[in-house]
Amino acid sequence: MLDISPGTKIDTMLSKLGQALASGDIDAAVNLFQADCYWRDLVTFTWNLKTLEGHEQIRDMLESQLSAAKPSNFVQDTKEAASEAGGVTDGWFEFETGVARGYGHIRLKDGLIWTLLTTMTELKGHEEPKGFRRPMGAEHGHDRDRKTWKEKREIEAAELGYSVQPEVVIIGGGQGGIALGARLRQLGVPTIIIEKNERPGDSWRKRYKSLCLHDPVWYDHLPYIPFPENWPVFTPKDKVGDWLEMYTKVMELNYWGSTTAKSVQYDETTGEWTVIVERDGKEVVLRPKQLVLATGMSGKANVPKFDGQDVFKGEQQHSSQHPGPDAYAGKKVVVIGSNNSAHDICAALWEAGADVTMLQRSSTHIVKSDSLMEIGLGDLYSERAVQGGMTTRKADLIFASLPYRIMHEFQIPIYDKIREKDADFYAALEKAGFMLDFGDDDSGLFMKYLRRGSGYYIDVGACDLVIDGSIKLKSGVDVSHLTENAVVLKDGTELPADLVVYATGYGSMNGWAADLISREVADKVGKCWGLGSNTTKDPGPWEGEQRNMWKPTQQEALWFHGGNLHQSRHYSQYLSLQLKARQVGIDTPVYGMTKPQHLS
Amino acid sequence: MLDISPGTKIDTMLSKLGQALASGDIDAAVNLFQADCYWRDLVTFTWNLKTLEGHEQIRDMLESQLSAAKPSNFVQDTKEAASEAGGVTDGWFEFETGVARGYGHIRLKDGLIWTLLTTMTELKGHEEPKGFRRPMGAEHGHDRDRKTWKEKREIEAAELGYSVQPEVVIIGGGQGGIALGARLRQLGVPTIIIEKNERPGDSWRKRYKSLCLHDPVWYDHLPYIPFPENWPVFTPKDKVGDWLEMYTKVMELNYWGSTTAKSVQYDETTGEWTVIVERDGKEVVLRPKQLVLATGMSGKANVPKFDGQDVFKGEQQHSSQHPGPDAYAGKKVVVIGSNNSAHDICAALWEAGADVTMLQRSSTHIVKSDSLMEIGLGDLYSERAVQGGMTTRKADLIFASLPYRIMHEFQIPIYDKIREKDADFYAALEKAGFMLDFGDDDSGLFMKYLRRGSGYYIDVGACDLVIDGSIKLKSGVDVSHLTENAVVLKDGTELPADLVVYATGYGSMNGWAADLISREVADKVGKCWGLGSNTTKDPGPWEGEQRNMWKPTQQEALWFHGGNLHQSRHYSQYLSLQLKARQVGIDTPVYGMTKPQHLS
Repeated sequence: MLDISPGTKIDTMLSKLGQALASGDIDAAVNLFQADCYWRDLVTFTWNLKTLEGHEQIRDMLESQLSAAKPSNFVQDTKEAASEAGGVTDGWFEFETGVARGYGHIRLKDGLIWTLLTTMTELKGHEEPKGFRRPMGAEHGHDRDRKTWKEKREIEAAELGYSVQPEVVIIGGGQGGIALGARLRQLGVPTIIIEKNERPGDSWRKRYKSLCLHDPVWYDHLPYIPFPENWPVFTPKDKVGDWLEMYTKVMELNYWGSTTAKSVQYDETTGEWTVIVERDGKEVVLRPKQLVLATGMSGKANVPKFDGQDVFKGEQQHSSQHPGPDAYAGKKVVVIGSNNSAHDICAALWEAGADVTMLQRSSTHIVKSDSLMEIGLGDLYSERAVQGGMTTRKADLIFASLPYRIMHEFQIPIYDKIREKDADFYAALEKAGFMLDFGDDDSGLFMKYLRRGSGYYIDVGACDLVIDGSIKLKSGVDVSHLTENAVVLKDGTELPADLVVYATGYGSMNGWAADLISREVADKVGKCWGLGSNTTKDPGPWEGEQRNMWKPTQQEALWFHGGNLHQSRHYSQYLSLQLKARQVGIDTPVYGMTKPQHLS
Repeated sequence: MLDISPGTKIDTMLSKLGQALASGDIDAAVNLFQADCYWRDLVTFTWNLKTLEGHEQIRDMLESQLSAAKPSNFVQDTKEAASEAGGVTDGWFEFETGVARGYGHIRLKDGLIWTLLTTMTELKGHEEPKGFRRPMGAEHGHDRDRKTWKEKREIEAAELGYSVQPEVVIIGGGQGGIALGARLRQLGVPTIIIEKNERPGDSWRKRYKSLCLHDPVWYDHLPYIPFPENWPVFTPKDKVGDWLEMYTKVMELNYWGSTTAKSVQYDETTGEWTVIVERDGKEVVLRPKQLVLATGMSGKANVPKFDGQDVFKGEQQHSSQHPGPDAYAGKKVVVIGSNNSAHDICAALWEAGADVTMLQRSSTHIVKSDSLMEIGLGDLYSERAVQGGMTTRKADLIFASLPYRIMHEFQIPIYDKIREKDADFYAALEKAGFMLDFGDDDSGLFMKYLRRGSGYYIDVGACDLVIDGSIKLKSGVDVSHLTENAVVLKDGTELPADLVVYATGYGSMNGWAADLISREVADKVGKCWGLGSNTTKDPGPWEGEQRNMWKPTQQEALWFHGGNLHQSRHYSQYLSLQLKARQVGIDTPVYGMTKPQHLS
């Protein structure tokens, strides 16, 4: 038998798939997939973020969506070589629907499709003005009425939100709101970003002073302007702030700092939101068609209730309110919690000369930053990957091409390797009394992040302070109550304290909707984040995609945007295209909306 | 005979060249060049910017420099394919000297070297912290005394120029000073940039409101952070301003706005400058080792003297002082001059409703922007080039690889094509009375720019206003004198005027040295810019490189930096490496300093 090249296998399959879809032959299309198969669609067929698992789900989706989607022109990307390893052939392709252009990734096993990723790149007739389409800037020729770039920007800033209504209002001007705002600006969707802080980046600047990004630079690029090659691996928080501020300026976003949303209501009959904000002390009424909550994937601060919190005479702060360690030199501090913030805050307090105790109430996943970078991210997001030709776009798509249902299978071996590599470190931590875990199924950090957004610390040094006792550790015991000057544990231990920091995490993002809109809307939408994996803090049933993120929700015209810089960068592409399609009246039949199973 | 591939020809030649140089066999090395040959060296062999023409000059350079340079490891760049066309084989290579790594380009004709370009990339042991060397940002581990990024930046800002002296002071904070400042920061050379305006970018913001860059975006990138793919082709001036401001911030430059240099003196015995500046109303004394004037390649404003300038009762401005057209609606304006600024100002005044006359005193080179982009720059700097795989770095090096002595031979056919394409346009201009030229040898715009930095207009529409009479034109006649309310020409024509704009260009950059340091130093250094081409405003003798730019001058520790964005980007690389070498005490034997032939 002749050896068939990977490229030819991909060509053949794309041709068959294209023909089956073009002719509406759903049986033929479904039969191109193996029994154990996944089709992840990001907006092209489903106008949703949706992973279809197995023949039946794929058939159901096609029966619902195929005639409207009108897919065509499935062609292998000639710039990306197909490859083969371990019995899997994988390749890249372009395609179209009736209204959009798309890009996809495909994996074949035994001559049939194992995984398929279809993503929307652009809407036909609404392409971004970039590359050959970039604006001229100078308008050649002469016209006595024309305005300069500066004059136009000033007019826009004066009118938008006052005499001209925005199509979209984004509440929350952190990296999520900014990345989405940049994409919407490029797509010509009039947008206002509302932010309570004065300047872009302030949400970073105002956090504790030792904070740096925990993800490395290759993972953190914003759309359009990547960090330069001299950028630090882990960006210090004030430098993130400066970058976001300059980005907001040069991307020409309409960013309303020092602005708070006072009330938000949706009128189902007019299809319009009424967003009342206070800007520089004055009330402004905005009437956008679409509302995006980008107030942080973490939702509202969780502060546990303990007896005696009203009696305690020292300071009590949620970690999000912690001002940094400088005022606490020589003071006694109890930090309740053992995730990222708890470790960062404990270490900074110790550095500043405070007497710090960390109270670990449940087990925590720890992974050393170096190991995570090398073993966890290195193939896609690292200097090595960049030098090997990996682009951010390609890395994002490879990442997106792994179905959530089986992602843990790829993650478990990574953490097995890390455990082996760092065995001495983990042993020392356990000897110090630290309760370790690697997730319910040992799949480690990234699955914890996707499922619950918490439960871990990426070690950049605090663990050594726990190991050597510089940071005192109490673990496996909960708080009984507070006295005037101490935290008392259920085992009777009394921890004297001038300051108690509650590094106790955050609720679901729909909590923001409850505050801003109504409890009713928050409940209608339900819990945000998580996959329905039936693991700790991510109850089932299985959803297959992150709940409510970057896709239509049960509340018409309400969207949630958030996550780390990687997600803000990548998923803002799909959210912005969904919003653009609605702005220009493109039909967007949404497939596979699920009723919320959990309120928060 | 077997066909030898271009790559093999280049390999063979590099191997011979490397051997000859390594063994000190200057005869052998010289004999690898054809009789009509050029070696352009940017800092690697000569510690100068120098083009050697013919065997004798190459021999002389090698006799002087070879033993100190210690070149080695001439290896073809495997990532860039060698190619062959029209009897010329060209290829790319890496090499080293004793102290540096370099990159080069080579062209062979008939088996011998026709052109050779050798450029310095980095100094060994002083590599920039980028790529694999980028800083960590977060310092893992813990230390009670460590400072955050923000604290370190604040300490640096408080100390540099006060308790800690900078190595380099750059006077002038436009794009030139900023690009050089960014490179010096990456090289770890403590530098202060002095700028009279308040904010980076103000030198653009303050110019006439219709101003846009005349060069297209692909030509204009700064080092480290290229413009994004949605950036306009011709950036409006205020948008340039915003970009420069953000760039200065995120590249962490020590930029002293609202600061003027009051006096500048060099002490030959201590090898130190004394730069007295006024910063925010307070005098500060700076003592750098090196001083860079980056106050604009254009030098000081030229204002011609005419009888009656003291009698004229309207306003008189040099083009650099023109505030924009808004105040002149309905007014009569005479613009003296017919280059870029004159055309831009005339068109903007006409748009604002002024009655404008352009006075053309000598012939001018006109090229339509579209034609220049398509025919003049398209192969190297265009969207087409980018999509075809051209990078900014490679384009800059190809550009640099063409020896100035023969560059006009490559330019003449370009302008022949443009003249043919735009024949009707040029005929219409001449019919309107406009005096056209294409340079003394018909080599067009870029040679005029390199030789004299003036004498042209890149047409973005003003020519149509001249052709249709909207902008009135008087040409071929000079000013006789001014009266109280008019400009009177030598032919007796009286041009009534409320405003006279002198769009009469600029002097040589060494005029800045006269103002800031002394006439003596300005004269010692001599004229800046120009090649010695013996064409209009660029008197001989032939220099082979632009006078005094980006290289050592007759005044120790005084440097000139300037030019368009392309030159600021590219040549700041060589200037920054020269300054770094001096900071760290690397021996920098300069070859081929020439005595100035002209004072200005």
